Amino acid sequence: MKAITRIEQSLAAAIALGEDSSCPPKLAGAIRHAVFPGGARIRPQLCLAVAQACGDDDPLLSDATAVAIELLHCASLVHDDLPCFDDAPTRRGRASVHWAYGEPLAVLAGDALIVRAFQTLALCAVHSPLRLPGLLQTVARSVGTPNGIVAGQAWESEPRVSLTDYQRAKTGSLFVAATAGGAQAAGADPLPWRALGEWLGEAYQVADDIRDVAADPELLGKPVGQDVALGRPSAAIELGLGGALEYFNQLIANASDSIPECRGAAQLRLLVQSEAERLVPVAMAEALLKRVAASTVVAS
Amino acid sequence: MKAITRIEQSLAAAIALGEDSSCPPKLAGAIRHAVFPGGARIRPQLCLAVAQACGDDDPLLSDATAVAIELLHCASLVHDDLPCFDDAPTRRGRASVHWAYGEPLAVLAGDALIVRAFQTLALCAVHSPLRLPGLLQTVARSVGTPNGIVAGQAWESEPRVSLTDYQRAKTGSLFVAATAGGAQAAGADPLPWRALGEWLGEAYQVADDIRDVAADPELLGKPVGQDVALGRPSAAIELGLGGALEYFNQLIANASDSIPECRGAAQLRLLVQSEAERLVPVAMAEALLKRVAASTVVAS
Repeated sequence: MKAITRIEQSLAAAIALGEDSSCPPKLAGAIRHAVFPGGARIRPQLCLAVAQACGDDDPLLSDATAVAIELLHCASLVHDDLPCFDDAPTRRGRASVHWAYGEPLAVLAGDALIVRAFQTLALCAVHSPLRLPGLLQTVARSVGTPNGIVAGQAWESEPRVSLTDYQRAKTGSLFVAATAGGAQAAGADPLPWRALGEWLGEAYQVADDIRDVAADPELLGKPVGQDVALGRPSAAIELGLGGALEYFNQLIANASDSIPECRGAAQLRLLVQSEAERLVPVAMAEALLKRVAASTVVAS
Repeated sequence: MKAITRIEQSLAAAIALGEDSSCPPKLAGAIRHAVFPGGARIRPQLCLAVAQACGDDDPLLSDATAVAIELLHCASLVHDDLPCFDDAPTRRGRASVHWAYGEPLAVLAGDALIVRAFQTLALCAVHSPLRLPGLLQTVARSVGTPNGIVAGQAWESEPRVSLTDYQRAKTGSLFVAATAGGAQAAGADPLPWRALGEWLGEAYQVADDIRDVAADPELLGKPVGQDVALGRPSAAIELGLGGALEYFNQLIANASDSIPECRGAAQLRLLVQSEAERLVPVAMAEALLKRVAASTVVAS
């Protein structure tokens, strides 16, 4: 079965478990809206790829780990979109949860998704219960305090923040949970797999910063995206567009190099490359670099 | 060691684990504000009392269960106080979290507390890891969908709701987690302990409804408290004050009768009685009943 099929089926099963006649229908609707249809599902795909590279001897638990990580990611998107944060009217091309269901149900849907993530892990640890404590720790650490995604979001409320701390917590931590958790779900040592998550998480964030700036090509070099509007730290602002692209390529190379020797190493390296191309297509990078060069000529 | 001392020490340890130099300071402050100083800590006290009645052979895990339940309770208070719900400026006699730290940090503190609850359970299952899956299920079920406290809160967004479903989810569920989880933490069968949590949870909610109405004695019989203002279901409104008091006493009697035969049964019955007196003091009940009688005479 293709990884994406496993992921979608497991997500559907996890969400369905929370839905019976005793569940308030609007809450159930808001939760579905938050999870389906999804984005690229990159975190759970990464999780399953690592689990497979480590033997995937308990597919139920690997799937649950992938699901838990994706549900936590969805929860963070629902809460990040709230009026008190980004006040985003849309997400994934349609209404955000609070726009479609109202703010109270968006808060509650996020809460319910966090709970469902941990509940899914507990439910699916039936064959390998002794893996649960460590796995749950890995996943929880990537979300909570002191430096999970919730802490990452909270840095936006502080007067000062280092770009690295901010991005590591806000984006990197869930990628680390994906790689380390994927290994743990398959009974492997998570430690050698953390670096892959760290590099990919940073690469993902830098790609996001680049796209935020590149969204309006007329204003290249004078970024006007969300990051600037909301005063968020951004690699594209800090390093310039050319520097950010160079940094992105370096991060992808580091990610690839960090993959531990194992049966599935070659396939994982291919996944990293295809993800890099999806995040910053070569054609887009070349076009951006040409514009940077042109604007430099004009400026000099 | 007294139960309340165990609880406060364990809460302090659990919160401290999320605080290091990598944690955004305001988020750490908001989380502390949400948990300390606490209220009566009735849920964790109930949890420990049941664990002790069942032998309390793994105090680390009993404490963690009590802590997890209290952290989830605190998280629900922080989110319930948000502007999109009750918009409460105060809680436990001082500023609510969103009033003191702003809405973004209140949302994030609630999220972080949910994560910390499950993380605490995972961390403290070191001596009895095989108890973790079931225990985590019990706790998660009491908070999430379809009928945990998050679902209870979500019923307020529905056009119709049965008083029983609403109260069972919003208040009862966490009391059931306290009794069933206390038993599970001590390696006992949780099933016989669910009824105690159900009865006490309902009694607690009815007491809350009574106090909400009785808060303004001038308007007894014409309730003007929060429940009415927010259109919430309330036993005191549905049954009248006299009916609600009678119902409360019956629920306490049922709770007491439901306690399974065990070494600590007598002590647990005392706890139930003292909790009943704390919730609705006999003197208060008598005064309320006198006023109900007087208003009935005036009305006829």
